Amino acid sequence: MRETIGSYLVRRIEEEGIGHVFGVPGDYCLTFFSLLENSPVQIINTCDEQGAGFAADAYARLRGLAVCVVTYCVGGLKVANAIAQAYAERSPIVVISGAPGVAERRRNSLLHHRVKDFDTQLKVFRELTVGAAALDDPLTAADEIERMFALAKRHSRPVYLELPRDMASAEIGPTQARSLPPESSDEEALAAALSEAVERICASKHPVILAGEELHRFRLQPQLARLADRTGIPVAATILGKSAFPESHPGYLGLYEGAIGREEVRDYVEKSDCVMLLGAMMTDFNLGLYTANIDRRDAIYAAKDRVSIGLHAYDDVRMEDFISALSEHGWQRRDVAPYEHPQHPGPFAPSDRELTVEALFRQINAFIEKDMIVIADPGDALFGASDLFISDGAHFLAPAYYASLGFAVPAALGVKTAAPTLRPLVLVGDGAFQMTGMELATAARFGMNPIVIVLDNDGYGTERPMLDGRFNDVHRWNYSELPRVLGGGLGMTAATEREMADALIKARNHESGWSLIQVALARDDQSPALKRLTAKLGDRVRSAQRSPSPDAQ
Amino acid sequence: MRETIGSYLVRRIEEEGIGHVFGVPGDYCLTFFSLLENSPVQIINTCDEQGAGFAADAYARLRGLAVCVVTYCVGGLKVANAIAQAYAERSPIVVISGAPGVAERRRNSLLHHRVKDFDTQLKVFRELTVGAAALDDPLTAADEIERMFALAKRHSRPVYLELPRDMASAEIGPTQARSLPPESSDEEALAAALSEAVERICASKHPVILAGEELHRFRLQPQLARLADRTGIPVAATILGKSAFPESHPGYLGLYEGAIGREEVRDYVEKSDCVMLLGAMMTDFNLGLYTANIDRRDAIYAAKDRVSIGLHAYDDVRMEDFISALSEHGWQRRDVAPYEHPQHPGPFAPSDRELTVEALFRQINAFIEKDMIVIADPGDALFGASDLFISDGAHFLAPAYYASLGFAVPAALGVKTAAPTLRPLVLVGDGAFQMTGMELATAARFGMNPIVIVLDNDGYGTERPMLDGRFNDVHRWNYSELPRVLGGGLGMTAATEREMADALIKARNHESGWSLIQVALARDDQSPALKRLTAKLGDRVRSAQRSPSPDAQ
Repeated sequence: MRETIGSYLVRRIEEEGIGHVFGVPGDYCLTFFSLLENSPVQIINTCDEQGAGFAADAYARLRGLAVCVVTYCVGGLKVANAIAQAYAERSPIVVISGAPGVAERRRNSLLHHRVKDFDTQLKVFRELTVGAAALDDPLTAADEIERMFALAKRHSRPVYLELPRDMASAEIGPTQARSLPPESSDEEALAAALSEAVERICASKHPVILAGEELHRFRLQPQLARLADRTGIPVAATILGKSAFPESHPGYLGLYEGAIGREEVRDYVEKSDCVMLLGAMMTDFNLGLYTANIDRRDAIYAAKDRVSIGLHAYDDVRMEDFISALSEHGWQRRDVAPYEHPQHPGPFAPSDRELTVEALFRQINAFIEKDMIVIADPGDALFGASDLFISDGAHFLAPAYYASLGFAVPAALGVKTAAPTLRPLVLVGDGAFQMTGMELATAARFGMNPIVIVLDNDGYGTERPMLDGRFNDVHRWNYSELPRVLGGGLGMTAATEREMADALIKARNHESGWSLIQVALARDDQSPALKRLTAKLGDRVRSAQRSPSPDAQ
Repeated sequence: MRETIGSYLVRRIEEEGIGHVFGVPGDYCLTFFSLLENSPVQIINTCDEQGAGFAADAYARLRGLAVCVVTYCVGGLKVANAIAQAYAERSPIVVISGAPGVAERRRNSLLHHRVKDFDTQLKVFRELTVGAAALDDPLTAADEIERMFALAKRHSRPVYLELPRDMASAEIGPTQARSLPPESSDEEALAAALSEAVERICASKHPVILAGEELHRFRLQPQLARLADRTGIPVAATILGKSAFPESHPGYLGLYEGAIGREEVRDYVEKSDCVMLLGAMMTDFNLGLYTANIDRRDAIYAAKDRVSIGLHAYDDVRMEDFISALSEHGWQRRDVAPYEHPQHPGPFAPSDRELTVEALFRQINAFIEKDMIVIADPGDALFGASDLFISDGAHFLAPAYYASLGFAVPAALGVKTAAPTLRPLVLVGDGAFQMTGMELATAARFGMNPIVIVLDNDGYGTERPMLDGRFNDVHRWNYSELPRVLGGGLGMTAATEREMADALIKARNHESGWSLIQVALARDDQSPALKRLTAKLGDRVRSAQRSPSPDAQ
């Protein structure tokens, strides 16, 4: 049998080492689902497409590429937000959407699920991806598929492929092998940038490395570790880059987040005479909502395709090449002044006190084991988690820039399929859980064992200090009763430290399925990091209210 | 205090008679939420933005205009699909999205929730609405707001307003009163179309009216009734137009859906020598997936801005004006040959037999009372419901063209706020319920009392006959246990007719809150209408699989 567009696509998914795809079927993509089911690739069906989008995002962050399969518009437009997040945070997902057949479109115009025109969804995804193509011609399909896979990997961002249902079984034409030319640095510029950087670093008295999330995405953690080991320069991380550098490493300083982070890290970084920003997007959260104070004249900044040193930039220097070359340079290891290295907080001795957010996170920190991955949803789950000490062998995952609520529970599905040996520890607020938490059904279906901790404080705790009203309340759920609805799970509540300790042990021992711990927290309690953050955000909202003119704030 | 852009917008919402808005707050729209909370407009917070989009859609279908308030990107992009459905099915929603302040954008570029550029979300909504504007200038804001409200009402379709957070409290400039010119028909063309139509109708032997959904949207039901009464011409409805004409009216023929509908209605319509298509979009589902066979040479087709008679068209003739003029014409009522008028099936005598889909819908039909509104989700819930006899005083609502699964439960929230005296009777499949069913939490929060019937057949029953696989299965939930999680509700199961009868009575008597009945159905059981439909759809999928060339099918 000749290869079809559908079977070509399935083969390419396999060749990329993608073992699982996430999605929800619909009549416009049934043929493709059937091809997948008859291949070694496993379909992970989620309850709603939103869950599939977030799960694919998490899978891509761990494995370097993921696939999400949906139907036309009623499926595709439901993942618009998840794919936007993947774009913003550089997570490479191939979205494959079914669509009305090419032939049936010619005959009829008002086919179900259509919005304005047949290409409405394609136009929407052009805004949310680094590449979007309709596979409506068997002669060009192979090239389009190759181009999109290459774009996704090169930019570490999502792409979109639209597969009209009659094309899934259309015989595919030969590839013209017009793949993207291999990406390379301008060799002269790379050498010049390297030479200037080495000179600056050697001349500096207190250099420091600030590690960002692109080190994760482009898998440059080994080069970073090598650079730190060989130079002896200490490493701080941004919140998006958390765990890109092993936190137990003696060269680790801690998280740098401007005024939000810990004072000693801020001091060290801001007093440095040579900050090396490696793969760190200059986002508001990464910069402590612009409370960061790094002198750019003293900074070396390696972003994806360009390296800036002080006030000038070298174009066409790839981050990978620059960081690799730096790590291979013949450094003489330097002795640095002693600094405070974050320590694992050690065991937690529970009392009968009611849980505070601060105590909860200390307790969770004592609980995190090797081979666990902490997945933090935006909100206090994330800010509290930013102070967790992540030991070697444990991992950390959070959408800390785009910050879409409801990421964490579906992300656990992606993590568990991408790295079956990791146990997901999900930290999620009650408001966020109400958005996507029912994807625990998918965990039950596929026998996954995430431990989900719901921080139950009756609403959007991050917003209350900015501007409060009844609109920040959410309806109370008895989250711990969900096993009755979904099966396969263990539901618990905890209001005191001792109850929490018991619940954590039970959850750890319940290895065959999911667990949920509903943690009762006071409505106005916050993590120390959130207290610092919301004070800043609140200032901004209030100043906007006071000063109607856009120039006044 | 001078009026701000935010307070102007709130005042205009009030003036339009919109008493409730649907949404989820976020930091970029907190100021606007606070303004709403301090106004007579009530905020209905949903669990997820998707629910707010669907609820607003239902509200708009009943009340003629609705408002959905979300935050930037992480909220807005989550309603992309619901707004696409509102576009496709002509439901006028004003989407108001918060956004980063104008001033803070100038200073910083990587603010949280941003995708590619600050206008990414605006560009996306241009594809999904009849108008989209950013309120980034106090001098033009009032005009933009007026223009968008007018566009939404004129086209009965969604519009998008983006409100940067610093603009919510910026003093608004005066309106230039550049509102849309009033829409009117070309008077000469209207007169000519009317005269030709009257002549054709009078000369025909077996005229018939086919009533569509735009009669609902543009509130032309009284004109339709008047036309039918004065001419004596019988009326059939499309599935989207169901209940636009009272089903107990002696002039009602039934639902026309090509080969999917009942044979006697099909015969009557297709043998007519003058079919008057009034406000009926020629969609695939409306036309029984193109099994309809209406001779366009004999048809009078009134669409929103144009009337076609036979093979020619009159442009700039508004549907409202044409139908009103037709209804006011000096008709002589004609006697028509007797035809079968659908009858209420009468009381249902339950036995101990296990429920079939067919028996379930007969039983539900006997249960529907005055002041109930049937809300059917796509799938067999909709196809089974298409055969329900909706008595006077009862209503019917379904997204029968765009067909997004998961509409019905959140739609009940919109219905209950738009028309508090109506009791929603929600029919929803298990797959669709898993997408949005947890919005019952919102029903619990606001004390609403929908009756939700979950058709539990273990998966996507509409897809199985087309092409089956494990991907069509969903995880089993114990839906009837949801009151333990959400509170305020009554959960029941029914496997036999008698159990269903008991459950329906209990649900009806539980007037203070929501009820859910989980109905056990055989995996391969289907309504008669779905059997006819899926046979057609299956042919199409299978023929696409067999014939790889797009031209061959």
